[in-house]
This record gives sequence, C-alpha cells and structure tokens, in this order.
Amino acid sequence: MPGEQRNAPRTRREVLAAAARTLIEQGPNVSLDAVAKEAGVSKGGLLHHFRSKQALIVGLIEEWFDHYDATVESLLEPEDTPGRWTRAHIRATFVPDDLWSHPSVVTALLGVPELQQRLDVAATRWRQQTDSDGLHPQRADLISRALDGVTLADLLWRGQESAEERDHTRDLLLKLTEQSGPLV
Amino acid sequence: MPGEQRNAPRTRREVLAAAARTLIEQGPNVSLDAVAKEAGVSKGGLLHHFRSKQALIVGLIEEWFDHYDATVESLLEPEDTPGRWTRAHIRATFVPDDLWSHPSVVTALLGVPELQQRLDVAATRWRQQTDSDGLHPQRADLISRALDGVTLADLLWRGQESAEERDHTRDLLLKLTEQSGPLV
Repeated sequence: MPGEQRNAPRTRREVLAAAARTLIEQGPNVSLDAVAKEAGVSKGGLLHHFRSKQALIVGLIEEWFDHYDATVESLLEPEDTPGRWTRAHIRATFVPDDLWSHPSVVTALLGVPELQQRLDVAATRWRQQTDSDGLHPQRADLISRALDGVTLADLLWRGQESAEERDHTRDLLLKLTEQSGPLV
Repeated sequence: MPGEQRNAPRTRREVLAAAARTLIEQGPNVSLDAVAKEAGVSKGGLLHHFRSKQALIVGLIEEWFDHYDATVESLLEPEDTPGRWTRAHIRATFVPDDLWSHPSVVTALLGVPELQQRLDVAATRWRQQTDSDGLHPQRADLISRALDGVTLADLLWRGQESAEERDHTRDLLLKLTEQSGPLV
C-alpha cells in the first residue's frame, strides 16, 4: 500500500522467522528471493535489513542467542540459592527448539564462522556463570560439560534419543545442583 | 616413472593427508587441483580415489572415525574390570587431534550431512558401550554427556580452555568410572 510505514524491528523479526521457515521447507541452499516471498516483503525491503544471505544467517544466529538468554532469565527461581543460575541454564538447554531441530537449518548455520564466534563467547559466559554459582567445582565442571554435550546432540544427532532419556539427564543434572560436596 | 605401480591404499591415505594439510593451509574452499598438487599425484589419480570434493571430505570423515576407534582399542586396559571401555573412550576423547583443531577443517566438514550420519552412528555405539560397561546408570549418563560436551568444545571453540582445565575434567571423569553407586 503506498505510503505504508512498516515497523522496522517487527519487519526484521518477520524476515528472520520467514528465513527459518524457508530453510526448514526448502533446505540449506535457500535464495533471498524465496525468503522475501515467504516474508511478504520486496527484495529491496529484505536487503534493507540483511544485505546478503550471509547477513541473514548471522541474524538468525543472533536471534537464537538472544532468545536463549531470555529463556534462561524467565526460568530463574525467585530465591537466590546456590545453583540458581545453573538450574535455569539446565532447564533452558532442555527446552525443545523448533529452529535447531531441523537438519537443513543446522547444515546452513553450522559452517558459518560467526556461529563459532558467538558460541565461543556464549559458552565462556555460561561457564563463568556456572563456576560462580555456589556449586562445588566438580559439580560445576561436569554440569557445564554435560550441557555442552546435550547441545552437541541437539545440533548433530537430535531425534536419536527419547524424551524419557532427555528428562532423565535433565533431572540428574538438576539434582546435582541441589547437593554440595565433591563427587569423587 | 613409466610403468610405476602405486600402492592404492597408500595413495588413498596420502591423498587424505594432503587434503587435510591443504584445508589447514588454504581454508575450507580448497580445490581438487590444490589437493592433487599437495599429494604429488595427477588430477586423474586423485579422481580415481575420490570422484569429487564431496567424496574427499567424506573420505576424511571416515578416516577420522577409523583412527578414533583404533585409538580407543590401543588404550584399553589389559584387565576386564567395570568401566574398562569407558576409560579408554575418555582417554581417547582427550587425545589432542591435529586435524579437528583447525577452524577451516571444522568449517569444511561440519556442514556435510555424512558427518552427521557418521557421528550419529558412532555416538549411538559409544553410548551403548558406556551403558553396558558395568557402571551405575547415572555415572554412564553423565560421562557420556560430558564426553559429548568435550567433543563439542573441540569442534566449535577449541583453544579457549587450558590444558590444565582439560586434564582436570579428564581425571574427574576417569575417577567417576572407578567408583560405584549413584551420584545423587
């Protein structure tokens, strides 16, 4: 419609959601044209937010990390007890993720250097928060490593384990935060 | 030299080693010509073993898994005690790996569907072997998840942790196999 003003941040989010849907439907080698069509914006409108397919992929990665941080925040218990942040991180890691569960999304995003950089920064921060959460260092170490392992499984072989197995690991990790003292 | 017969399996291994060196030196977008030159074989000789760059990448992945299995085998203790296989798997996971420590190798290999398929098969087998190794199920679960986490760190943010931190985690995991009973 002539003269219509679109809300820029909202359009950005809509384009990212359309990019995710297009990746899931069409596989990792999607075109910007296909994403623009799915988002209902012109190619020029898409390019205003994301100058290239690479920029769009980086946008998806940024969006994912922002969403993860917000999820952890929403899962924090009201009481500030030892292991509080770690328990929210455990619960957030096990929340099913529609985007990353699709092999074509993983294939499109895994080879991107920006993902490795963002994962690197995030993993360092998560590790520091777990290490300063009042837990025994052995517990903090094993919980951090195990959560990385759950992330690897989600990225590379999701769907191979049952919901029961995942719940079992989540509950074990949560219980490890509720006790103190060394493990060995 | 005219009439020279090259040893086919040896040439295959040499081409794979050359492919790894070329990936490390030139980045993920190497050409088959560059690999043939590095291996000292003709392009035709390379194509005899690997019909395409994709086939070469899959060859590197196969070679890596074969090498890993041989490493675990070589690290098995002579005595058949509970946790024997798991301890060899822990030790093998922490052996430094020249190939996978290079970001350009990781970038070239991570997006390949065959890697996900091989990792999937291998992870399922490793999990079954850890689960049937005489350990308490909580210990087997935590150790499997933590080793997956070490693998993720190696793939995506290697170099961010010190050798001391790695040794610490390895020793903690080994000790977990030497005790019995639940963790929580």
